[in-house]
Amino acid sequence: MEKICIFGVGLIGGSLALALKEKSFCRQIVGCSRNESHLKRAQDLGAIDSWTLDPCEAAKDADLIFLATPVGAIEAVLKSIQGCVSEQTIITDGGSCKQSVVDAAERAFGRLPDRFVPGHPIAGKEKSGVDHADAKLYVDHKVILTPIETTDPTAVAAVTEMWETCGANVQLLNVGQHDQVLAATSHLPHVLAYALVETVANTTYVSEIFEFAAGGFRDSSRVASSDPTMWRDICEYNRDAILEMTSLYRDRLESLEQLIEAGDSDGLFELFSRARKVRDGRFG
Amino acid sequence: MEKICIFGVGLIGGSLALALKEKSFCRQIVGCSRNESHLKRAQDLGAIDSWTLDPCEAAKDADLIFLATPVGAIEAVLKSIQGCVSEQTIITDGGSCKQSVVDAAERAFGRLPDRFVPGHPIAGKEKSGVDHADAKLYVDHKVILTPIETTDPTAVAAVTEMWETCGANVQLLNVGQHDQVLAATSHLPHVLAYALVETVANTTYVSEIFEFAAGGFRDSSRVASSDPTMWRDICEYNRDAILEMTSLYRDRLESLEQLIEAGDSDGLFELFSRARKVRDGRFG
Repeated sequence: MEKICIFGVGLIGGSLALALKEKSFCRQIVGCSRNESHLKRAQDLGAIDSWTLDPCEAAKDADLIFLATPVGAIEAVLKSIQGCVSEQTIITDGGSCKQSVVDAAERAFGRLPDRFVPGHPIAGKEKSGVDHADAKLYVDHKVILTPIETTDPTAVAAVTEMWETCGANVQLLNVGQHDQVLAATSHLPHVLAYALVETVANTTYVSEIFEFAAGGFRDSSRVASSDPTMWRDICEYNRDAILEMTSLYRDRLESLEQLIEAGDSDGLFELFSRARKVRDGRFG
Repeated sequence: MEKICIFGVGLIGGSLALALKEKSFCRQIVGCSRNESHLKRAQDLGAIDSWTLDPCEAAKDADLIFLATPVGAIEAVLKSIQGCVSEQTIITDGGSCKQSVVDAAERAFGRLPDRFVPGHPIAGKEKSGVDHADAKLYVDHKVILTPIETTDPTAVAAVTEMWETCGANVQLLNVGQHDQVLAATSHLPHVLAYALVETVANTTYVSEIFEFAAGGFRDSSRVASSDPTMWRDICEYNRDAILEMTSLYRDRLESLEQLIEAGDSDGLFELFSRARKVRDGRFG
């Protein structure tokens, strides 16, 4: 490829850029965002070759555009480029909620362009910003693509090749399934971690509690250090699936509390054993 | 010291034994439990010099006894040794709930012996058993001791020295404060992780969910791989403090769900920013 354009050169966009540079996947990478200092930093770090604050200039003549902004900003970016992007240009994104991205593209273009491949790399860190970007971020991680019926297979193949170049494993899901799976695996744990930190921060012994917080608390709360803008958007754009999961979660938590309240040793032992087995089956 | 006796030579007891052997803190370490194969394994790994299934034989002539069984087994161990342990012997433990250990000792001995120093090393892994024991487990970790008014200061000093030999930092708390602090920092995250795994394990897309579960889910659920017996006991013996925390937690979670439901972007952004700041203040 000649030119790739990345909107939002933070952790996700910056890591993709670094990986593609390392593999010489394209001749030039242009960055675009609303923040000049972020773009300068991305250029200093060698993630992008050049940058512009003008979306049309960035998108013009691009072979591929990657949208790495928070989900809530995608519609505005698409509207700003829809008059200047070629029909040959492949567009893909890294948003955590796919129905909302499909909807945004439909509002911007009238319909989802055939060469728009909605995507989501299942990788990240609780640290945000291009300073934490890493050419190895996607190695051995999954990337989900959610093409719809009318999506051009050659565009899907090109986006797949881009991610595989970064070391990722690409898999296809449909849009709705993606949003439900991610609500459970990612969005729910984030909401729970935010609630955990809020709970502890509002207890009487808060200073002692944080002083004695060790590995269990550290890991359980890790994702509460994630970017607030990103997670505000995810909670807005995948609201229904998230609320379905939190509701199921509260039911499970209440059942567990009832076992504790009742002193049901056998019930607790059985539940804890089952949970350990399930988790070890995936991560043990 | 001449002889240290450890009841329960798993992750916690085994790691203490390995660290004390490495530092030549005492001449011999004797292991005791109800499981012969565990004891043999601990001896093979060099954690203990000898072992016995007879609690009285193990405790007799010991300078120091460390109770590293699950909390629920401590009372039975104390009852089995109360007739054969010398008044000079220091007793300490690694139980995660201190009031229950104090109560167990009072039932076994009539009163908490002056040389009984309740303790709790704030270190562990989600893996249990002596095969996961590690001489470095306690390095730079905190150990909380919860002596009561009548506890002999020289016994507290001896237990402190033992833990400092393992590289730990010893701090004193009172019994009730320990149990409240641990309910928040440790017991709550464990209960939440068990509920998280249960929730996901009972969803429609469970196989896809586990397939796409990445770092966020892995870390948020890590402690659900902990020993079920240990956590069954903790939920029994620190029940009130745990239920207080889970109730506070459910309130916070419901408030967060209401913000999501209402699409309150500003409220979500504020909450997520506050949580990130609090967590980064401790672990950032």
